[in-house]
Amino acid sequence: MSARKIGVTELALRDAHQSLMATRMAMEDMVDACEDIDQAGYWSVECWGGATFDACIRFLNEDPWKRLRTFRELMPNSRLQMLLRGQNLLGYRHYEDMVVEKFVEKSAENGMDVFRVFDALNDPRNMAKAMQAVKDVGKHAQGTICYTISPVHTVEGYIKLAGQLIDMGAESIALKDMAALLQPQPAYDIVRGIKETYGDIQINVHCHSTTGVTLVSLMKAIEAGADVVDTAISSMSLGPGHNPTESLVAMLEGTGYETGLDMERLLRIRDHFAEVRPKYAEFESATLVDTDIFSSQIPGGMLSNMESQLKAQGAGDRIREVMLEVPKVKADAGHPPLVTPSSQIVGTQAVFNVLMGRYKVMTGEFADLMLGYYGECLGERNAEVVEMAKAQAKKDVIADRPADHLDPEWGALEAAAAKLEGFDGSAEDVLTNAMFPGVAPKFFETRHEGPKNVSKTPAQLAAERAKASGDRPGITGPVQYNVKIAGREHSVSVEPV
Amino acid sequence: MSARKIGVTELALRDAHQSLMATRMAMEDMVDACEDIDQAGYWSVECWGGATFDACIRFLNEDPWKRLRTFRELMPNSRLQMLLRGQNLLGYRHYEDMVVEKFVEKSAENGMDVFRVFDALNDPRNMAKAMQAVKDVGKHAQGTICYTISPVHTVEGYIKLAGQLIDMGAESIALKDMAALLQPQPAYDIVRGIKETYGDIQINVHCHSTTGVTLVSLMKAIEAGADVVDTAISSMSLGPGHNPTESLVAMLEGTGYETGLDMERLLRIRDHFAEVRPKYAEFESATLVDTDIFSSQIPGGMLSNMESQLKAQGAGDRIREVMLEVPKVKADAGHPPLVTPSSQIVGTQAVFNVLMGRYKVMTGEFADLMLGYYGECLGERNAEVVEMAKAQAKKDVIADRPADHLDPEWGALEAAAAKLEGFDGSAEDVLTNAMFPGVAPKFFETRHEGPKNVSKTPAQLAAERAKASGDRPGITGPVQYNVKIAGREHSVSVEPV
Repeated sequence: MSARKIGVTELALRDAHQSLMATRMAMEDMVDACEDIDQAGYWSVECWGGATFDACIRFLNEDPWKRLRTFRELMPNSRLQMLLRGQNLLGYRHYEDMVVEKFVEKSAENGMDVFRVFDALNDPRNMAKAMQAVKDVGKHAQGTICYTISPVHTVEGYIKLAGQLIDMGAESIALKDMAALLQPQPAYDIVRGIKETYGDIQINVHCHSTTGVTLVSLMKAIEAGADVVDTAISSMSLGPGHNPTESLVAMLEGTGYETGLDMERLLRIRDHFAEVRPKYAEFESATLVDTDIFSSQIPGGMLSNMESQLKAQGAGDRIREVMLEVPKVKADAGHPPLVTPSSQIVGTQAVFNVLMGRYKVMTGEFADLMLGYYGECLGERNAEVVEMAKAQAKKDVIADRPADHLDPEWGALEAAAAKLEGFDGSAEDVLTNAMFPGVAPKFFETRHEGPKNVSKTPAQLAAERAKASGDRPGITGPVQYNVKIAGREHSVSVEPV
Repeated sequence: MSARKIGVTELALRDAHQSLMATRMAMEDMVDACEDIDQAGYWSVECWGGATFDACIRFLNEDPWKRLRTFRELMPNSRLQMLLRGQNLLGYRHYEDMVVEKFVEKSAENGMDVFRVFDALNDPRNMAKAMQAVKDVGKHAQGTICYTISPVHTVEGYIKLAGQLIDMGAESIALKDMAALLQPQPAYDIVRGIKETYGDIQINVHCHSTTGVTLVSLMKAIEAGADVVDTAISSMSLGPGHNPTESLVAMLEGTGYETGLDMERLLRIRDHFAEVRPKYAEFESATLVDTDIFSSQIPGGMLSNMESQLKAQGAGDRIREVMLEVPKVKADAGHPPLVTPSSQIVGTQAVFNVLMGRYKVMTGEFADLMLGYYGECLGERNAEVVEMAKAQAKKDVIADRPADHLDPEWGALEAAAAKLEGFDGSAEDVLTNAMFPGVAPKFFETRHEGPKNVSKTPAQLAAERAKASGDRPGITGPVQYNVKIAGREHSVSVEPV
């Protein structure tokens, strides 16, 4: 019996550095690995979308569209893959449908092949337009299930959602586990259930490694019939990142499944990023493994956000109260998965509730969440809190597709971009400004200076650390100097005071 | 159907700190975790043996027997477990049988319950005496299979070895994977094979996490019928250490297996060691995950040993040649598993072969290995190299049990210890000196000073690093000081030269 081929999506160029080093990796630190990545035999190479677009223009003075074209050129044999937040595109609000169409069209034109389309609330209506646009340009539309744990989330519910995505024309289904919550048994049950219910639709499984358990989940998903799994080359893996690609290969040896990846290429890719990663050490978190989320239901990034909000209010000691408040707010909102932007919205409201009394003050975003402007959640929203949201926001509940409430905006977006210094006249630039209006204008102005590399050599890091620790770093006792003053030499003992 | 209970052995107090921080953890950094460990519901608590005995007297000025008694007192409800190197005990040579008996008797008397008995070559004759001694004192004798990969090591071979251990009276079988080489499929096949061949003998599985794949191997071993698995609390896990205990718990949820561990206790144990671990940072390696061993067959620790040997000979650039030589030397020796002491013996000989020509100079240890003085390997030894070993060592081949060639030595060991300053007259002290004659005398002399803690606070570490980087650390430009000389104040600019 020949082994069943398991496809692999390599994450090093997108989610791995997004998760490990705050999306800061410079293009020049990736290009030399591209030939090996292109030739290693991956099913796809995730290299764009998510936070990379934002990071490019915010921190790296790099044109994300040019990055995409460079990847296309360097990896001619690979399926390039991106993460796309449905009707949000890569920004933080819903866009009118024509903007979605334009974005997908331009992404495809610049080289994108596989679009992983998701919505934070798992509301299919927020994914439908983007998926249709992907199909319209003849590219691979992957519908996404965001996995979470709650009293209303069940294996059956996820299987049903997969059916909705398939009905919308998904060419494959991604089971996306952004918080490393997907345990082996539900991984098996969901994949199995989808395959048994809908036949042989391709299933891709994406897990983070934060809780230390998800390589086992990938194994179980594969046993249940998963076709493609996401991993990151070992030197760009683990912690808040993903499971190591080489470990996956080793895991499958002799099991009747095989990746067909070229191990020599993998080792070269590994060695490349082993050199690169230390330069971004200042952006890395210390998390090696963290299983707290299974009991707290609060992802690590959300927790640290809430902590800094509390500290800014001089209430850093109330984090325990806020942690107990989060599940209540989440339940009131109908149990949204906690992922951008719902994690920020729920977390901030929990902080407000603790500091000012429950729902005494509502953020505009939380009111919108309660009123349906982000879409529908699986659970029912607390009717009392909905009433409070209506009163505070002076808005009505909506039940239809949020984007249906938006007016055509492409013309206005073109006009806004045209006013900016450095705007190059392209639809790509219009889209960049549409998604990041607070950042794009400055980027357009400085774009001609070329990309910045924000990494640091170990020597630079050491010098900075020394500097940060004070003007006279490391000196703890008197130091002897020979000092010449007015022509006379003195032996002087100097001590910091 | 009720879930099948999977026992867990907690490694934090022994192998975890041995693997992560060179066995340096002070007893005072462990005592406060003991009550929670004792109450958490582990099958056993590994807390002694391996390198801990050596490290206690070599680095920590701590009596290892007293450490054992303290653990016994602090964890009255737990099975205490140790790792015992068969006829080597905890030392680096074979001991005559009566010494083995005495050691086991005293270990049991001081509180040990479970003796995991292994031999580097998997030669049952080197384990038989220790196992019989354990049974004689009514304790748990665990026979061990050291797992390795080689052309002569097969699933069937390991199953056969398990049978030999059972025939020798093993109450349980440990499958010990010290190099993180045990992949999921062989883990399944070996455990399944043992259960099917010999019925329901208890199987314990011990894996390191270095290659990133072995939590999956534990899952497969459990599915195949393994009864107990070894893990380390998450704050003492991963890298060259072991899989996280909490991740194991999460892994099994809903699968029909359960650990029954008390999660609140686990979190307290985790928090305890999360405070402790950073203090030992200087002993930690940077390895996060390393799958090289699958192709090189060379464990990480062995590689760094050979590198330093080469550097000491001014031949650091020849490591690639040595890496290619290792498999040949290993094959010539009959494919011993590479673990202490065989890894050192094979590695050093490979270095000698590269530097001086193949087998031109043989170490005494390698000659002994070729002549049977360490026991039998699974593979056949290269007859030509055996002849060279005979000539160089001027010794004959032996085929019987190595320890049968040893004369009674207990009396001489007693006499030797009696001469030492600070010897307390106990059999325990005789054993300590017998196992570490190069270290024990000095330890006996200084024992009254009490244990040392070699950990460092972050501030201490920073100060040391600064000091190591030069007398004027971090100063790169002129620094202004106000200096008083002979009553007059001067503003002085000082610059390192």
